[in-house]
Amino acid sequence: MLTYSLDKKGSKPIYEFLYECIKNDILCGNLTAGEKLPSKRSFADNLGISVITVENTYSQLVAEGFIYSLPQKGFFVADIKNTAMYKKNSLAEKYVAPKTSGHKKYDVNFASNQTDKKSFPFSIWARLMREVLTQRQNDLMKNPPAGGIPELREAIAVHLKEFRGMKVSPQQIIIGAGTEYLYGLLIQLLGFDKHYGVENPGYNKIAKVYESHNVKCNFINMDKSGVRIDELEKTSTDIIHICPSHHFPTGIVMPVSRRYELLGWASSSEFRYIIEDDYDSEFRFSGRPIPTLQSIDVSGKVIYMNTFTKTLTSTIRISYMVLPGNLVSLFHKKLGFYSCTVPTFEQFTLAAFIRGGYFEKHINRMRKLYLTKRNLIINALQNNNYADKTEILEEDSGLHFLMRLHSDICNENLLERLENNGIKIMPLSAYYKNPPDEAERYFVINYTSVEQEKIVSAIERIFECI
Amino acid sequence: MLTYSLDKKGSKPIYEFLYECIKNDILCGNLTAGEKLPSKRSFADNLGISVITVENTYSQLVAEGFIYSLPQKGFFVADIKNTAMYKKNSLAEKYVAPKTSGHKKYDVNFASNQTDKKSFPFSIWARLMREVLTQRQNDLMKNPPAGGIPELREAIAVHLKEFRGMKVSPQQIIIGAGTEYLYGLLIQLLGFDKHYGVENPGYNKIAKVYESHNVKCNFINMDKSGVRIDELEKTSTDIIHICPSHHFPTGIVMPVSRRYELLGWASSSEFRYIIEDDYDSEFRFSGRPIPTLQSIDVSGKVIYMNTFTKTLTSTIRISYMVLPGNLVSLFHKKLGFYSCTVPTFEQFTLAAFIRGGYFEKHINRMRKLYLTKRNLIINALQNNNYADKTEILEEDSGLHFLMRLHSDICNENLLERLENNGIKIMPLSAYYKNPPDEAERYFVINYTSVEQEKIVSAIERIFECI
Repeated sequence: MLTYSLDKKGSKPIYEFLYECIKNDILCGNLTAGEKLPSKRSFADNLGISVITVENTYSQLVAEGFIYSLPQKGFFVADIKNTAMYKKNSLAEKYVAPKTSGHKKYDVNFASNQTDKKSFPFSIWARLMREVLTQRQNDLMKNPPAGGIPELREAIAVHLKEFRGMKVSPQQIIIGAGTEYLYGLLIQLLGFDKHYGVENPGYNKIAKVYESHNVKCNFINMDKSGVRIDELEKTSTDIIHICPSHHFPTGIVMPVSRRYELLGWASSSEFRYIIEDDYDSEFRFSGRPIPTLQSIDVSGKVIYMNTFTKTLTSTIRISYMVLPGNLVSLFHKKLGFYSCTVPTFEQFTLAAFIRGGYFEKHINRMRKLYLTKRNLIINALQNNNYADKTEILEEDSGLHFLMRLHSDICNENLLERLENNGIKIMPLSAYYKNPPDEAERYFVINYTSVEQEKIVSAIERIFECI
Repeated sequence: MLTYSLDKKGSKPIYEFLYECIKNDILCGNLTAGEKLPSKRSFADNLGISVITVENTYSQLVAEGFIYSLPQKGFFVADIKNTAMYKKNSLAEKYVAPKTSGHKKYDVNFASNQTDKKSFPFSIWARLMREVLTQRQNDLMKNPPAGGIPELREAIAVHLKEFRGMKVSPQQIIIGAGTEYLYGLLIQLLGFDKHYGVENPGYNKIAKVYESHNVKCNFINMDKSGVRIDELEKTSTDIIHICPSHHFPTGIVMPVSRRYELLGWASSSEFRYIIEDDYDSEFRFSGRPIPTLQSIDVSGKVIYMNTFTKTLTSTIRISYMVLPGNLVSLFHKKLGFYSCTVPTFEQFTLAAFIRGGYFEKHINRMRKLYLTKRNLIINALQNNNYADKTEILEEDSGLHFLMRLHSDICNENLLERLENNGIKIMPLSAYYKNPPDEAERYFVINYTSVEQEKIVSAIERIFECI
């Protein structure tokens, strides 16, 4: 019978140790597809542990698709080659592994969208949270309006005016637990019968949210200025979802001319809207930002979205949208029954954080820190013997840029080499619906969570692979 | 021109004072439907205030449907008799006013689902939050799995075992920002093509969430044991959403026989599921609770849901569901890309709160407090000259019960009298799709947020109205 020595488990809980042993055996091929695993009881007896522990181990493996169960028959090893997680022929799927699993340890991760861990303003946040918990007890217990507590919405309105020159009333602002949640709320607001459009290439999750809500989602091809209006017109799209300030993953900043063209497209039908996703606009490193579509829109066609997950931390789950006036009333009528999804505790703390000027200071500090990291990477890429082997595409903005590697090796082999060399990185092709040949050997450098001291050696490792 | 004396505004911000003046004039009929309001500029000049202030006032009034704007024409008074909020012929709509508005001040509110404000364990929560913010900084910054941080899911699994005798693995537990959010997530999991069923009468919001997601929602009539199986069979329902431990608003506790019948119904088709909403099961005042459907289900047909909004505070927005094994894998496949909607800050704090035994103590304390309130109300209803005019329907469980008033006055007039006497209360009929005559003069007593010292006088006021 399958057995493992529990002596080696170290400080890990037994179920976790067991989970890792079995997973490794499946990944290494020691356990093959279709092979039956011991019954929970006999496995538990054999190892001298409780049945519940084995059950937890098996549940985790089932959840992650490594094994499956058949009623009255038992547990069997899954054919992992055929599961999406390990499919070799789909780069996107290969590299978007479920968050719960830690199949591979990377030394440097250029694929993470997390913020710099050490930079969260813990001491200020802790002080403000304490103040809120002692001074605002009555307010904390009151159900806030569906759009969020007025204080936070007012603070955001002031912030948008100062940072983005946007003139919005707090009543237009709707707070929610992350942009993914707000995308879903917008579908409920605008209609399941509407057709949504996303940028191709683009941030995968947006299309996934639309698909998960069972609404029609069109992929609109881009040119160097953003989504192509001719491509947009060819489709049935009612609502187009774009990132004009700094597109993910290409980094394109949409010029004003294209912005007006898009507003023209939207104005020509009652049901058309533009969702303007301004997710990392705080991080423009030089020059003045182009005004948001929201601020040049006079027809009430732009829904502006932004988030604190890029500026503070992705784990805080606070985002917001600014609705045009006509949608504010519709929101209250159709969706006013919903409770605001962000705890009042975090809302009051964040409001105090913005009002106290800490948010502005924090952004400035982060901008400097990210600029330093960015310059380190770009210098390392440009000043070495392999400089002619790379090309950098960036617009002095945002938290990622594209790197092109000149190499004869194909994308897939390059990625495998990089992976084996401890580098996790996403190919541009992973963000396309149907990746074109031109996307080959372009990679997205997400550098916010990469530790500064690892940058130079990480770039060297990249060059070792080409 | 319309004008108001700002001398009377007291300590209120100008925009709020102005908002209340105009709203009152609309409600009282001093401003009539279709009447044009002054332009923002002239109104501001006239009152000697800024245009932005008038803008904020108008925006708020637009958002709440009191006024509307026409491009290039200005602002006009809405026909509030025709807006859902003020429709006289729909009791449900009349009494479910948007949360943002405060049209009427009630002395006693029996219609609120909020917890007792003074009882939130602020000092312990503040201490745990501080510990989390100083000791768990690295963990706080890590994106948790889609289902929530393992520590909280483990703590909930232990709690469910101890309090409800449920044997579930942490991997089955999915944390989300409130049950309303989780209902939406379940639609994405189970399918927009499925037909959902809700109890009639029932908690209005559940049907609203289904309707807002554009899925077919059937209203299933109940008898004294819960939803009727024959009624259920008559419909196309695939997934039935029930509150078997303590139904809202009737208070019915579903007997074991009906539970088995329902499980039988679910087992007869691959696509059938039962959503078991156990929202206030912690507050059973005597006797042993009936086991959950989840614990007697052997076919993987029950999705169990519960929330911390009833036990802690509705503003904390943390709920969870327990998926049957077969849906765990599906969840990871279809919805594993979503970020967990609850901030890690609150998740770690709550995990520490449960693990430290504070949650158990808090529930016990709240159970005593609510029992005291409940007994006070029931005593006040039973021991007075009007005792023969009331009937109480309750099952020693949960945070609400039904009161029947014997009176010749119709529901609508009774409600108006109660309202004028400072009592906010919901009629049972408001929770029906098509209220039957038998529901007349039944009212729902939600007592958790009512202040103890106001109870006796509140009951006297009720009797003054019949």
